[in-house]
Amino acid sequence: MTVQIAGVASTPYGNHPDSSTRELFTDAALEALEDASLSVDDIEELYAGNFIGDLTDDQAHVGAMLADYLGARQAASMRTESACASASSAARSGAQAIAAGDADVALVGGVEMMHTSGLAEVTDALANAADNEYENEAGLTFPGIYALMAQVYMDEFDATNEDLAAVTVKNYDNGISNPIAQRQEETDVESVLESPPVATPLRLQDCCPITDGASAAVLVSEAYANEHGLETEVSVVGSGQSSDSIALQDRPDLARTRAAERAAEQAYERAEISAEDVDVVELHDCFTIAEILAIESLGFFERGEGARGAVEGETAVDGRIPVNTSGGLLAKGHPVGATGVGQLVEITKQLEGRHPNQVDDPTIGLTHTVGGSGASCVVTVLRAGGA
Amino acid sequence: MTVQIAGVASTPYGNHPDSSTRELFTDAALEALEDASLSVDDIEELYAGNFIGDLTDDQAHVGAMLADYLGARQAASMRTESACASASSAARSGAQAIAAGDADVALVGGVEMMHTSGLAEVTDALANAADNEYENEAGLTFPGIYALMAQVYMDEFDATNEDLAAVTVKNYDNGISNPIAQRQEETDVESVLESPPVATPLRLQDCCPITDGASAAVLVSEAYANEHGLETEVSVVGSGQSSDSIALQDRPDLARTRAAERAAEQAYERAEISAEDVDVVELHDCFTIAEILAIESLGFFERGEGARGAVEGETAVDGRIPVNTSGGLLAKGHPVGATGVGQLVEITKQLEGRHPNQVDDPTIGLTHTVGGSGASCVVTVLRAGGA
Repeated sequence: MTVQIAGVASTPYGNHPDSSTRELFTDAALEALEDASLSVDDIEELYAGNFIGDLTDDQAHVGAMLADYLGARQAASMRTESACASASSAARSGAQAIAAGDADVALVGGVEMMHTSGLAEVTDALANAADNEYENEAGLTFPGIYALMAQVYMDEFDATNEDLAAVTVKNYDNGISNPIAQRQEETDVESVLESPPVATPLRLQDCCPITDGASAAVLVSEAYANEHGLETEVSVVGSGQSSDSIALQDRPDLARTRAAERAAEQAYERAEISAEDVDVVELHDCFTIAEILAIESLGFFERGEGARGAVEGETAVDGRIPVNTSGGLLAKGHPVGATGVGQLVEITKQLEGRHPNQVDDPTIGLTHTVGGSGASCVVTVLRAGGA
Repeated sequence: MTVQIAGVASTPYGNHPDSSTRELFTDAALEALEDASLSVDDIEELYAGNFIGDLTDDQAHVGAMLADYLGARQAASMRTESACASASSAARSGAQAIAAGDADVALVGGVEMMHTSGLAEVTDALANAADNEYENEAGLTFPGIYALMAQVYMDEFDATNEDLAAVTVKNYDNGISNPIAQRQEETDVESVLESPPVATPLRLQDCCPITDGASAAVLVSEAYANEHGLETEVSVVGSGQSSDSIALQDRPDLARTRAAERAAEQAYERAEISAEDVDVVELHDCFTIAEILAIESLGFFERGEGARGAVEGETAVDGRIPVNTSGGLLAKGHPVGATGVGQLVEITKQLEGRHPNQVDDPTIGLTHTVGGSGASCVVTVLRAGGA
C-alpha cells in the first residue's frame, strides 16, 4: 500500500531562545496539519525524533510529551533515535504503521533545541552518536571523525580543499532563497578556505551550524486520502535503512559509507527505480565531505568522482542531479532530531512545485539521512502523484 | 498478516558488573536467535529499547551499536524510546515492519545497565521520563509520583497498605521459581509494611529494584516461518498504544491510567478478544499501586476492586487471572529499556508451556507496559498457535 504525504512544515531553523522543545515541535505539527487539512484529533500515531534532549534539557519520553502538548493524547506516541537520522527513522516507522494497517494517519517529525546549552555541552552530547568506549574516550568529536574521513578521501582520490569548499558555496547559495534557512549569506571558495580551522582539513564553513528547529509531516493511507478527499500530491514509494560499524576503526575504507550504499539499494529496489531516475535530492551534508561521500553512495557519481559534483555544477539547482536545493544542513541548519523530516518537507515541496529553489518538473525525489559517522543511514524515495 | 514469535530470551536480571550494554544485549539476542533456529545474518530489522544510556554511559545511537556488535550490520537498526515502555515500542515497531511487508525477520529487544552509576544518578536519569519543567524541577521523583497516585487511590476506594503489600508478597513468591529473577526471596505482608519508607505510602518492598538486564525476541512473518519450517508456537494478534498527559497535574483522576485503558481497548479490538479471554498477564508493576491500577485499566477488575486481586488470590498463578507469574518488575527486576520485551519473553514461555510458574494450558496472553507515570502505555496480545 502506498503511503501519501498530506502535509508538511518546518519552523525556521536557527536560534529560538523564546521557545521550548514542546512549543517548537507544536508549531511545526500544527502547520503540517493545516497543510494537510487535518486536525490534531485525526492523529493515530506520532513518531518524533529527538537526540540530545535528555542531556541538554533533562527530558526524555519526548514522544509522549509532544503528543500531550499538541493535544493528541489519543495517539500512540514514541521517540525514535538513530542519532542524526532520528527523524528519518520516525518517518519510516510512521509509514510502516500505516502500511501495516495499524493506522491511517501518522504525524512524523522531530525537534531539537541545541542552544539551551553551551557549545562544549552540545559537542559533548553529539559525541554520544559515536562509539563512547572506542572513540569519545579517545578524544574524537564529530568534526574530528569527519576530518579523518575527508583526509582518507582526499588522499585516495586526489581531491582538494577547493573541491570541499565548492559544496559549501553551492549550499549557502541555495540557502539564501530558503526562508527557513539558518544561514542566509553568500560565500566563495576563498572565504571557505579562510574560515577558522576546526579539524584539518575541515574549516568552519565546511561544518553545519548548531541549530534549533522542528519539522513535521502528516502521512496518510491511500484509502484515507481518497475517503476524505485529501488532495495529496506526493507518495512515499520506498525506503531503505541499514547499519554499519559505529566506530570508524572497524571500517575497511573510511572514504565509503556502506550503510548508505545498502540503504539506497534497498530503497531503489522497493521503489522500482534506479539512481538515474532521481530528479532532486536532499542529503546529509553535516560536513562538506559528507555530501561528496553521499552522492557516490547513492549512485549519482562513481567512487572518487563525487568531488567534482559541486565544482562542475552537476549538483546545482539546474544541474544534472540537484542536491540540497534547500541549502542542506550546511546552510539550512541541522537540528539533529528533526533533520530527516526536514528533508522530506523540502522534497515534498519540490514535487508539489512550490519550492523556493524549484527544479524543473521533478517526478522522483530522494532523502538521505545519516546517523553518526554512518553507522545508520535511511534513504527514502518520494514520487509526485498522490491518491 | 499475523506476526509470529520464533524465539525469545532474557539474560538474568540483576547486577552485571562484568558486562557492558552491548555485551549484555548480545547475550540475549544470540540466545533468542538460537531459540528461533535462526542466525544473525537473517536479521533484517533491529529495534532496541534503551532509556538512560546517554546519561549513564554517554552512549546514544544504541540501535546501530547493538546491530554492529551483534554482527548484523546489514539490518535497519534504531532505538525506540517511550521511557519504561521503550522495549514494547520496539516490539510493536518490529511487528509493524513485518506486517508492512518491509521485513520477514525482526529482532526486537532492549537493554539497560543501571548499576554503572550511583543510585542518585540513576534516580535522576529515570526522572527524565516525567515532565522536567513541571515535575522534576518541583522535586518529584518516580517513587513520589506513584506515591501520589497510591494516596489518591487509597483515599478514593478505602484501600489499605496491606492491599498494596499483597501484590509484593505474590510477586516475590513467583520470582523465587524464576531463574532470571533479581529478587529470590520470600516476604510477607508484615515485612513489606516494615521495610524502609520510600515515599508514603510506598515502602521499599513496594518498589521495583534497580536492574541490569537485556531481553530479545525474534519476530518473523507467517510466510517466512512456513517457508523455513520454523516451529513457531505463538502469534502476535493485536497491539494497542496510547498516550496521556506527561505530568500528573493535567490528569483529572490520579487513580486511573487512561493511556492503558485506551491501549487495552485497541489491542482487544485488533485481537478480536475481550478481557475475559485473557489467560495470563505480565504487567507493569514498577510499584505495587501500578499493578492494582493496571488490572483495572485492562478490564480484569472493576474500578476500585483491583486492590483485592492479590489479597484474594485472584491474580495468583492458579487464580482467575494470573498476573506477573514471572515475579513482575517487583521481583524479576526492571531494566527499564528491556522490560517490555522481557514481558513478551515470559508470556511466550507460558503459551509454549515451558514457564517455571506454568499456568494451566493458556491460549491468550497479554503484556502491559507503562512509560513514566502512564503517559505511554503499550498493550500486546499473544495467542498460542504458530504458523
